[in-house]
Amino acid sequence: MQSVVDHVAGYDYGTKELATSPVTMEELDQLKQTITFDPEDERYLRVAGEVLEDQTESIINIWRGVITATPHLAYYFKDAQGNIDEDYKIRVKERFKQWVLDVCTKPYDQDWLNYQHEIGLRHTHEKKNKTDTAAAPPHIPMRYVIAFTAVVNDTIKPFLAKKGHSLGVIEKMHKAWCKAVLLHVTLWTRAYCDTAW
Amino acid sequence: MQSVVDHVAGYDYGTKELATSPVTMEELDQLKQTITFDPEDERYLRVAGEVLEDQTESIINIWRGVITATPHLAYYFKDAQGNIDEDYKIRVKERFKQWVLDVCTKPYDQDWLNYQHEIGLRHTHEKKNKTDTAAAPPHIPMRYVIAFTAVVNDTIKPFLAKKGHSLGVIEKMHKAWCKAVLLHVTLWTRAYCDTAW
Ligand code: HEM
Ligand code: HEM
Repeated sequence: MQSVVDHVAGYDYGTKELATSPVTMEELDQLKQTITFDPEDERYLRVAGEVLEDQTESIINIWRGVITATPHLAYYFKDAQGNIDEDYKIRVKERFKQWVLDVCTKPYDQDWLNYQHEIGLRHTHEKKNKTDTAAAPPHIPMRYVIAFTAVVNDTIKPFLAKKGHSLGVIEKMHKAWCKAVLLHVTLWTRAYCDTAW
Repeated sequence: MQSVVDHVAGYDYGTKELATSPVTMEELDQLKQTITFDPEDERYLRVAGEVLEDQTESIINIWRGVITATPHLAYYFKDAQGNIDEDYKIRVKERFKQWVLDVCTKPYDQDWLNYQHEIGLRHTHEKKNKTDTAAAPPHIPMRYVIAFTAVVNDTIKPFLAKKGHSLGVIEKMHKAWCKAVLLHVTLWTRAYCDTAW
């Protein structure tokens, strides 16, 4: 139910190998407050999880479409010869699909927090390519990760609307989704910064 | 028309004293592409500018209300004794009102880009407090600046709806506003980072 496939390669959520996030639970709490992420949002995220559960493949295809059509983003999935590393894309896609469900269904506890830091690191020099032994460029600039939230938040709306909910409920699911994505991406920026974070 | 008061103290947009942004026009262009900020968004931002023009005071009051009600944010407007620096708040408020209009009406050219870097710096050790010789804490963590976009984007919607536009137009103004704010805030994070940006 909470996992799209039996085993997702490189998906290390909750494993002992994962380092503890440098972000504290108190910092997480203050971040949630800053985003005004509240119990109503949590409730509507659960509903969104049910709505999105069987749509993750189509969702990722939309996001992938945007990345593929944008040369300065497609670049990060290519090898030194400029060829797309299809194997890398396929493996990352499964983790991306799992993430959509995790956003909606997981408790935001210490395991979750640790994996957010890991995802941040996997976009940087520190860990990009390592999980899949890929040969793509080693670092995605932070600005693209922040900026891409616009796409992730915009394009989710039609998928939220596909299961016959009222406009009001769709709006609330969307608001909750946008806040949750912002929370995730903000946590990922920790991997890019040090004390100024 | 494009300025809410005749002279806004500390508002150095377009002045010769302002340093050139380290962000290049090409980088700006790629950032816009990543956000999928397009000519339709620009058009609806102009409409939003007309809608918001006489509402900036009420808008800032809402945002201020959230900050005041959130101790770890209110902190950044207080002196060492824990008293709110009212003078500082009043001066910054006028620049904040001007910003709402600038988001909607200014061309995103070199002057605009330079001032975005300046605003970023004014949230950090580098320049916070300097413009108003305030004695508040010297640095706002980057995570709060990114996270607060949720508030700025959520709360703008009722204001966009106040001038009798159709739901469809309000949605398009809102989408344009959200992308534009994301663009601004992403540019501001440049002041917090160096090569990883
Ligand atoms: C809102 C913005 C973004 C979201 C929500 C997002 C989400 C994700 C997720 C969930 C993963 C898999 C994490 C895991 O290993 O479990 C991932 C990995 C990856 N993402 Fe992003 N991402 C974003 C921005 C970007 C951008 C702008 C690029 C640039 C093309 C990008 C390229 C990649 C790549 C190449 C990987 C594989 C990293 C590795 O080598 O392990 N992402 N992303
Ligand atoms: C989306 C997020 C934010 C937006 C859009 C925003 C916008 C602005 C703007 C337009 C200004 C005036 C810039 C100028 O001097 O012309 C400003 C200054 C300021 N902001 Fe923010 N801000 C954000 C986040 C925050 C947060 C989270 C805090 C924390 C309380 C904060 C506290 C301040 C302070 C204290 C100043 C005065 C800085 C100085 O000393 O010059 N801002 N902000």
